[in-house]
Amino acid sequence: MGNLLKGVETLDKIEKIQRWLAENDRSIAFISNPKTIQYLSGFYSDPAERVLLTVVFQKSDPFLFGPALETEAIKASGWTHPVYGYLDHEKPWQIIGDQIRARKTDETTFAIEKSDLSVAWLELAQQQFPNADFSSNLDPMLDQMRMIKSDDEIEKLKIAGKWDDFAFKTCFEAVKAGIPESRVAAEMSYALMKNGIMELSFPALIQSASHAAEPHGATSDKKIEDNALVLFDLGTVWQGYISDATRTIAVGKPDAKSMDIYQVCLEAQLAAQDAAKPGMTAAELDKVARDIIDKAGYGQYFNHRLGHGMGMSEHEFPSIMEGNDLVLQPGMCFSIEPGIYIPNVAGVRIEDCIHITENGNEPFTHTTKELQTFG
Amino acid sequence: MGNLLKGVETLDKIEKIQRWLAENDRSIAFISNPKTIQYLSGFYSDPAERVLLTVVFQKSDPFLFGPALETEAIKASGWTHPVYGYLDHEKPWQIIGDQIRARKTDETTFAIEKSDLSVAWLELAQQQFPNADFSSNLDPMLDQMRMIKSDDEIEKLKIAGKWDDFAFKTCFEAVKAGIPESRVAAEMSYALMKNGIMELSFPALIQSASHAAEPHGATSDKKIEDNALVLFDLGTVWQGYISDATRTIAVGKPDAKSMDIYQVCLEAQLAAQDAAKPGMTAAELDKVARDIIDKAGYGQYFNHRLGHGMGMSEHEFPSIMEGNDLVLQPGMCFSIEPGIYIPNVAGVRIEDCIHITENGNEPFTHTTKELQTFG
Repeated sequence: MGNLLKGVETLDKIEKIQRWLAENDRSIAFISNPKTIQYLSGFYSDPAERVLLTVVFQKSDPFLFGPALETEAIKASGWTHPVYGYLDHEKPWQIIGDQIRARKTDETTFAIEKSDLSVAWLELAQQQFPNADFSSNLDPMLDQMRMIKSDDEIEKLKIAGKWDDFAFKTCFEAVKAGIPESRVAAEMSYALMKNGIMELSFPALIQSASHAAEPHGATSDKKIEDNALVLFDLGTVWQGYISDATRTIAVGKPDAKSMDIYQVCLEAQLAAQDAAKPGMTAAELDKVARDIIDKAGYGQYFNHRLGHGMGMSEHEFPSIMEGNDLVLQPGMCFSIEPGIYIPNVAGVRIEDCIHITENGNEPFTHTTKELQTFG
Repeated sequence: MGNLLKGVETLDKIEKIQRWLAENDRSIAFISNPKTIQYLSGFYSDPAERVLLTVVFQKSDPFLFGPALETEAIKASGWTHPVYGYLDHEKPWQIIGDQIRARKTDETTFAIEKSDLSVAWLELAQQQFPNADFSSNLDPMLDQMRMIKSDDEIEKLKIAGKWDDFAFKTCFEAVKAGIPESRVAAEMSYALMKNGIMELSFPALIQSASHAAEPHGATSDKKIEDNALVLFDLGTVWQGYISDATRTIAVGKPDAKSMDIYQVCLEAQLAAQDAAKPGMTAAELDKVARDIIDKAGYGQYFNHRLGHGMGMSEHEFPSIMEGNDLVLQPGMCFSIEPGIYIPNVAGVRIEDCIHITENGNEPFTHTTKELQTFG
């Protein structure tokens, strides 16, 4: 994958940001998204209303700023640059301003993560540097940087994927007609936690029969129906990297309509996963699956994009959808998840996340996608 | 609590926002924080990079805008005003702009949630309404509105608190020297999930011995030590409302230093919880606990505020800390959680969340705070 970042592959992440600042004639970058901070430092924390900020200078050493009670954990995470903390009764933006002024560097050109930085924080930064320009956006550069995963990141995603296969296995062992969806989720989480996997990448979705026709519904205390499909959308976290996959299985003998949409969805998923390779666009890949579902007459019931980028979260780039002419490249990681949801009848979704390789792609999850019957 | 909202107690939440818009000569409010949207509509979703927005007009019917695959769930949540959806390949801010223009109302004065709205979204809104003023901040009004809980909200917080007491019980039954901290967390989550409590308000913190001296550390696979203290910071979610409490217990016979900091922390917690009542300030309450810990010589090891507001999250107002002269009022809900953390030795925190009543306060959790021994 190194050839995709020609000339910068030997630079570490901070150096890449510094180079971007130089090329864009900016002096200082504010990194405020906790996931970006984790990407740069190895340290993750959801600061909620507290301030956690990485400040990268074009020509000076970066620093990480956060609550005093996090500073020891930041240092232990592997971040080797300075760390400054603040106590709850102190004014964080005053301290950030003072530390920036102490660098005696240019303080008039800032770049920010516009998709993350709140208007309130921008105003606090502007109070510190009233004559500065904050109009530069770091998002496209950071999105691009995070979109192409390194070998090390892909190794972590593979391990997270293996735990997702384990999660499916525990679900399939637990599922049977008459027990609540939530009980299956409980058995799965318990099995993962006994193996030290404490965190799911999102609340597991386990939905039976027509309940699965709500693509963003939640696991409920609804009982698993007999002779119906059950949808499982599960993800785990391994060292900050996630897995995300969906399987739909049968309990008993589902009706003919359910069986039909399963086969159409499977065909669409397999075709897209078979097609995904470098050089094609995201929109072209979406179309591979959508055409099959359209042709079978279920197009109106596939009401979301084919997939989303993933890595440290399930909301990264690239977005695999109509209108996105981004060309797929090795190192990109995303889901391929066609779904067919017929309200009050049944819902099917089948999903693997994959990484694009030099010649094609490889999935992170390997649980069979042929229709299986359990319970 | 009605007397605290004189004149507006009969207004529903949308009407309160409309009244604020009229008083502040603004035409339109953008509500972007998913928790505020849940507060107004009953509907919760983390939209991640997708757009979820409530638009409230001073003189027209509000609408809720979100991904097409969420619109059915929004309607089912009890939101009785219009809902508009968008598909992944559509331009959400164009649709929002069109819907606003369709109301034929004033489009020049907007108020936003500055603590939530990203700079990127603000710029997209400004593209739709290039001549509008977006400088008004809804935060103080919404924070005030959410800070005073209704009887219905307090009932939900009480139920979440009962499940937190249940969680402590399951932890205390599971804890023993030699098993990993994470195993105790697994037993607790499993017991909650078997009872249908699927969501924790934050990842449970279970930390033994010196590990508990990292106040924002995480549950790990470190083994519970014998003859040491173990800290449990746990919270559950009930119908969108959370619980949050901390207990520290003994496994075996902790050393004299551990026992001493436990007693000091307990004295500070009980004194503050006894003192909390309407009319005193947040800073005064913080000082009640801090003075006791200072006097015992551990002041430097109590490195966070006494408490945080809570309700739909553990990050609401009021903040119970030095410098906050906010006067406590009935209906306010917050934590009282002094801690003493001596690096490489031991950590103690004891916490209840309470609601201020007409004459004092009542806690949401009732697990004993006297030092108990288990395992």
